[in-house]
Amino acid sequence: MSLLLEHVTAVTMDSAQPVLKDAFVAVEGTKISSVGTARPQGEFDRVIDGTGKVLMPGLVNAHTHVAMALLRGYGGGHDLYHWLNDYIFPAEDKLDARCVAAGTALGLAEMIASGTTCIADMYMYTDAIAKTVLEAGISANLSCGGVYFGAPEDFSPDKCGDCQNQLRLVEEWHGAGEGQILVDASIHAEYTSCPSLWEWTADFARRHGLGMQVHISETQSEHENCWKKYGKTPVALLDQYGVWERGGIAAHCVWVSDQDMDIMAQKHITAVHNPVSNLKLASGVARVPQMLKAGVNVALGTDGVASNNSHDLFEEIKLAALIHKGVGLDPEAVTAQQALEMATVNGARALGLDTGVIAPGKTADLILVDFSAPNLFPCHDAVENLAFSARGSNVVMNMARGKVIYEKGEFFTLDLEKIRAEVEGYALPRIFGI
Amino acid sequence: MSLLLEHVTAVTMDSAQPVLKDAFVAVEGTKISSVGTARPQGEFDRVIDGTGKVLMPGLVNAHTHVAMALLRGYGGGHDLYHWLNDYIFPAEDKLDARCVAAGTALGLAEMIASGTTCIADMYMYTDAIAKTVLEAGISANLSCGGVYFGAPEDFSPDKCGDCQNQLRLVEEWHGAGEGQILVDASIHAEYTSCPSLWEWTADFARRHGLGMQVHISETQSEHENCWKKYGKTPVALLDQYGVWERGGIAAHCVWVSDQDMDIMAQKHITAVHNPVSNLKLASGVARVPQMLKAGVNVALGTDGVASNNSHDLFEEIKLAALIHKGVGLDPEAVTAQQALEMATVNGARALGLDTGVIAPGKTADLILVDFSAPNLFPCHDAVENLAFSARGSNVVMNMARGKVIYEKGEFFTLDLEKIRAEVEGYALPRIFGI
Repeated sequence: MSLLLEHVTAVTMDSAQPVLKDAFVAVEGTKISSVGTARPQGEFDRVIDGTGKVLMPGLVNAHTHVAMALLRGYGGGHDLYHWLNDYIFPAEDKLDARCVAAGTALGLAEMIASGTTCIADMYMYTDAIAKTVLEAGISANLSCGGVYFGAPEDFSPDKCGDCQNQLRLVEEWHGAGEGQILVDASIHAEYTSCPSLWEWTADFARRHGLGMQVHISETQSEHENCWKKYGKTPVALLDQYGVWERGGIAAHCVWVSDQDMDIMAQKHITAVHNPVSNLKLASGVARVPQMLKAGVNVALGTDGVASNNSHDLFEEIKLAALIHKGVGLDPEAVTAQQALEMATVNGARALGLDTGVIAPGKTADLILVDFSAPNLFPCHDAVENLAFSARGSNVVMNMARGKVIYEKGEFFTLDLEKIRAEVEGYALPRIFGI
Repeated sequence: MSLLLEHVTAVTMDSAQPVLKDAFVAVEGTKISSVGTARPQGEFDRVIDGTGKVLMPGLVNAHTHVAMALLRGYGGGHDLYHWLNDYIFPAEDKLDARCVAAGTALGLAEMIASGTTCIADMYMYTDAIAKTVLEAGISANLSCGGVYFGAPEDFSPDKCGDCQNQLRLVEEWHGAGEGQILVDASIHAEYTSCPSLWEWTADFARRHGLGMQVHISETQSEHENCWKKYGKTPVALLDQYGVWERGGIAAHCVWVSDQDMDIMAQKHITAVHNPVSNLKLASGVARVPQMLKAGVNVALGTDGVASNNSHDLFEEIKLAALIHKGVGLDPEAVTAQQALEMATVNGARALGLDTGVIAPGKTADLILVDFSAPNLFPCHDAVENLAFSARGSNVVMNMARGKVIYEKGEFFTLDLEKIRAEVEGYALPRIFGI
């Protein structure tokens, strides 16, 4: 399958040619084959007219729990303790693989319609997520979030359910769909595990050549309790056990120290900024300008939709570009360009994927944004409009791995009616008894 | 014209019956005639099936400069000084009434499509704004933002262009369209005027029974310079000159003091919170939880789109409900309900309009939100979903003053193609020479 996007404004995220007007972008199979302002030679199976539209790399949601779409808005308005213990945990206790598949499909529908082409996910019933992602067509780095609540001295990988699960997931899913699914090693968080698990997970990632996902310093109390218990911050502590040897995704990083930032820059750890979730759960505001200055790769995530309550990454882009200006009283903190980089090229780097940029040879993860909509007109600067004016609803085409999976409100890999029926007919009754 | 909305979930903002499921809301002329769970007697000219949709009061944008839609994203990425002096002011210098009409129509299109039914606006060429608003069908409190840069001792209302303009505007427009247009008295800000103008404006508002619009304590330097110059804060200083005798709209209020809040509560001054603009321009984060606690009426605004860069009030609702949690580390600060109140009933109070609530006798400013969209499903709590998951793009019907002016992407009072042609063919070439 070959496809040509013509007469489009391409916001490439490629510093060699950042914005190309009246551009031609050709796709061959799963890859971008050419990018330029002259029409490429040859015939194409399909030609899409991009007049009045902006083409940009598909968005990368570098930290989410996609199946939590089922719990959108559930328990809202309560403090964190009651929200988790009285609402979220009891609901999650009732989940099964079928619920998680339904929640994943629902979450993916929202993500695809709003321009996401790649995700890093951490959740239970990971097989169900993998199957659903394969059908949906986007790329995903999946992890199950390893925990260990036993006595540290009793730890044995053979008896640790999450270790066995991770081993199995790698066997079954790593590289599935010609690389569409990658399995990442994972540690849910420092406070839900122990040094033996960290050592095992670091070794596991090394042996299998995997990425790593960990929740890091999301709340002040988590960060400070770690310091009290171990005399180190979570970033430094896990570093001691080799967890970051292959880099990794550190989700949240709201309370990381300056020393943590140095480690993160040196070890190629990505800080995934989740501004909406961090505000909603009153976790605080991550020091993103300082992380950028320290050379840390910063990506964006929505976190689970239960603490957001949206999967629209354009919202995270805008908030990432806004909040550090206002909180730091610095109108030049986090530019529109930097916020877009977080959601594209930086996210791709976090996931270890060759995407996030419109350039020949890159994976054809591409979205078209309709700039004729009243909220995107006029356009004095396409990057400013993408960062501060665009919404997920302006996305009129989502191409993942060279295949158009969504166009003008229509899904080609997901059946919205079927998803609704499954959520209403099975998942919600099972979880909530309704 | 009579109309019935049936089988709708009504989020009424009326404490007597906050959320009504499978409700019937009848409209007769410009007013809501009945609200309940039983079908009202009689025949209706039109019946709208609201199954799967939420009906709520139309949104009130209590501080904007709507015509600035022309400058969306212009000069982005620069600090405030350069943004204003090198970009915004030179562009505004080139405006004429025709440009302002075009920008107003464009901004109104965006607002109407995203659920706004009432605005408070402050901008030049106010007649052009009034004409365009009348055509568009929403309600507007218009002001021209009185300034006086002359020597205070030379002030004379007869020679003050803005005083004469305000007198003329009241004559020509106050109450036009059977109350669709109200002219508010206005002082652009303390730092762009002088005591004689404040006295005159207070008297002008009193004589004509007008509302009042003023920019208040938007930036720290503005607030502190006022203190240095007059030994008072802007709120207290204007109070001394009688400006707040009839209440009023104080836009921004980022740096108001505790004492200011007491005055505001006592004098029925509305603080209009503009969270996006305040972050984007690095003005800071208004102390909204403290204002609410002090009993101040807090409403929401987008400010001009040049510093936002969107007119979607759902974004302000969400940010108002998020930011105070995260910045104040308080997960219970500004609830979903409170944020919706700011955008509806509190906004109506600010504008002095009998709207913002779904109840018999109130003006029929109503919007329908499609809850079958993937981003609003499932719905555990309609108020949570409206505050944290809804986007302007979920609005499928906008009824202003009893008349459906927008439905499923179609505008009935505005011609989007004509607006685009006017912006591209006249306004942008005039302002930017392109």
